[in-house]
Amino acid sequence: MNIALLSIGDEILIGQIVNTNVAWLGAQVTNKGYKIVATSTVGDSFQTIADEIRRFTSISDVVIMTGGLGATHDDITKHVWCNVFGDSLAFHQPTLELLNERYIRQGRDFTERNKLHAFLPSSCTVLPNSIGSAPGMMTEYEGTLIFSLPGVPYEMKAIYNESVQKFLELRHSQLETEVVVFKTIMTSGIVESSLADLIGEPSRFLGEKSTLAFLPSAQGVRLRFGTSALSTQEAEATLDKIIAQVKPIIQPYIFAEADTKLIEVVSHLLQHHSKTVSTVESCTGGMLGAEFVSISGSSSYYKGGLITYSNQSKTAIGNVNADLIAEHGAVSEEVALEMATQCQKLFATDYAISITGIAGPTGWTDQKPVGLVWIGIATPNGTVAHRFQFGTDRQLNRERSSGTALHLILKELRTIS
Amino acid sequence: MNIALLSIGDEILIGQIVNTNVAWLGAQVTNKGYKIVATSTVGDSFQTIADEIRRFTSISDVVIMTGGLGATHDDITKHVWCNVFGDSLAFHQPTLELLNERYIRQGRDFTERNKLHAFLPSSCTVLPNSIGSAPGMMTEYEGTLIFSLPGVPYEMKAIYNESVQKFLELRHSQLETEVVVFKTIMTSGIVESSLADLIGEPSRFLGEKSTLAFLPSAQGVRLRFGTSALSTQEAEATLDKIIAQVKPIIQPYIFAEADTKLIEVVSHLLQHHSKTVSTVESCTGGMLGAEFVSISGSSSYYKGGLITYSNQSKTAIGNVNADLIAEHGAVSEEVALEMATQCQKLFATDYAISITGIAGPTGWTDQKPVGLVWIGIATPNGTVAHRFQFGTDRQLNRERSSGTALHLILKELRTIS
Repeated sequence: MNIALLSIGDEILIGQIVNTNVAWLGAQVTNKGYKIVATSTVGDSFQTIADEIRRFTSISDVVIMTGGLGATHDDITKHVWCNVFGDSLAFHQPTLELLNERYIRQGRDFTERNKLHAFLPSSCTVLPNSIGSAPGMMTEYEGTLIFSLPGVPYEMKAIYNESVQKFLELRHSQLETEVVVFKTIMTSGIVESSLADLIGEPSRFLGEKSTLAFLPSAQGVRLRFGTSALSTQEAEATLDKIIAQVKPIIQPYIFAEADTKLIEVVSHLLQHHSKTVSTVESCTGGMLGAEFVSISGSSSYYKGGLITYSNQSKTAIGNVNADLIAEHGAVSEEVALEMATQCQKLFATDYAISITGIAGPTGWTDQKPVGLVWIGIATPNGTVAHRFQFGTDRQLNRERSSGTALHLILKELRTIS
Repeated sequence: MNIALLSIGDEILIGQIVNTNVAWLGAQVTNKGYKIVATSTVGDSFQTIADEIRRFTSISDVVIMTGGLGATHDDITKHVWCNVFGDSLAFHQPTLELLNERYIRQGRDFTERNKLHAFLPSSCTVLPNSIGSAPGMMTEYEGTLIFSLPGVPYEMKAIYNESVQKFLELRHSQLETEVVVFKTIMTSGIVESSLADLIGEPSRFLGEKSTLAFLPSAQGVRLRFGTSALSTQEAEATLDKIIAQVKPIIQPYIFAEADTKLIEVVSHLLQHHSKTVSTVESCTGGMLGAEFVSISGSSSYYKGGLITYSNQSKTAIGNVNADLIAEHGAVSEEVALEMATQCQKLFATDYAISITGIAGPTGWTDQKPVGLVWIGIATPNGTVAHRFQFGTDRQLNRERSSGTALHLILKELRTIS
């Protein structure tokens, strides 16, 4: 089943927002074995939107568009929809009542502007929005199933999960087509080119219909294997065979055999072994702590952290001896070790992670260039520190520091028998 | 000057990565007054890439493609390039030498795989990559200027800044076309629909060629005014007239009159008034601290923070009395006030910000639903706490908490005379 994704909004074209919707939708439909054949973004122009809807309708089984459903004048998707599909807008009573109820419950006025959300193409299937005002819409046109969803990511996701997904499943069962299946292996602690050299020529493993892609990020390299077949079972069997050949070669670097984040694996291991951890961060300023807290329920193993960006806070809050900083500098093996050891004591945790580095662009010296980062790991058996030389980009250096710290604590947790 | 952006890579189509390149490139060219007419993403398929390059070449003055320039087998952009533009690959001696030098300097082996980066279309203009291995390429085809850049964001940005930008300026000066100019006003502390009601019917201000868009995010609503004219000066004058009418109506909510982040304005004010700040975070777990540290040089006013996600750390590290938590609960006005007051003392700062809330999906009660967040602000004149009821999404609740905390500290800083 071929799917085309159309994003609507000047704000995406001119780069005021990053389009996370296509990534999320792409992942959802790919996980189901459907194929994205095209994605594009158009601005808030009537004719351009209409043309692109027509083009996508002619090349795919399903079109999912997002954006332009708000209640301000620049939102025109419903008007274009009526024009392309020969429909007209009318008040949709159930939506009107639902909106009225929600506004009363939240103690907000139900204004004329809010009522516009119930003004919908008369012959579309309305897809209720459980967490926001603008409902989604569905129709069929020349054999293609068309969806329109709000551009606000969490509203789009809610409508997709509650309605779109089941309509897609139904349509897929009606078509008899090949499924495309992907499997992912997550690695950390090795750069892309070294990983590629280790694996060697991919055609040794891959059949004609199978693919392998290398996807590097600040937290490691993702390996994505893909193939197509008439059934999911058949495709998965092919992928399993390929992966069984590759895995032994790269075993030490694998942290997950599914599209999982490093923090999820680390959190799982901490919980599994009933171990606790704390953090003390300088140049990352809380990014590592925020990773831990991103996982619901993390308070059972993540006991808290310190953000000691200034030298003063390293000594006053982080209990690092001021002489140590004076002698070796704040970015040094000695200070990284002491930060981690003191943090472990302060929070009374099994493990503690420290990060101190020069994120840039300022603060460097000849001996300590931008990108130099020391990461300390305090364990029940003592503390170690590792030196890294990252690049010149402040934000990227901070992300790589946080990602590398997770890789190091993972390695420690894996030694627990 | 019309520009089309083409992103290449299965990983974008299937949603394994979020495409930040189009947003960044979109913002760059829009700031120069050039117009993005189309953006699309295609997978790693020879024929599809070739077709889309041809389509974009026929509809725009400039095509910028990103991705597919790596040295693994799934990177095929250079081969497609040669096919479409009738070229062939050859070793480019200056690139080979540059790569060799860099690898020697970094103490890495210069392998056969790395050499592939110097294997380039023989008649393209090579755009050197100062921070990575894959250079960019430029050519002209049927009157359209074509660029190919690596998909790795920081390498793409470096080549854009060092080479592409000046070629675009040159081309724009050769064409005689209208420029499109945008101006942005940033607001915080008001939701989109209330802001729209306050402003009223936009046609009151806007001429035929001008536009106004409402762009909400977790940190506030961005208002984007746009217009086109033969010169930048003329377009800016039109926008200035429109904005002069809208500004007085929404003055209390404006935090910047350019596309600026809330943290940048807060940081500037702290520095300007020589005031210091510290943070103590529960459900955001370091996100607010990471915002402060994202600004280079922030150690002069951001003195550090505590991540007290567990109750134990709130008392042991955050100095909050355990009885207070037992009596009122960790998410309460009393605890938010005490967290901020104690943090201010601990770090000896002029201001301190506390965040304690129920991010969800677990941890709620009937009296304290998911999305309930208390934010405390300690000032030189005492401490206040504000109650917020956000939604049901964990990540979004955390982002809104962090954004709202910045809005509150901004309001405090603005009272300094």
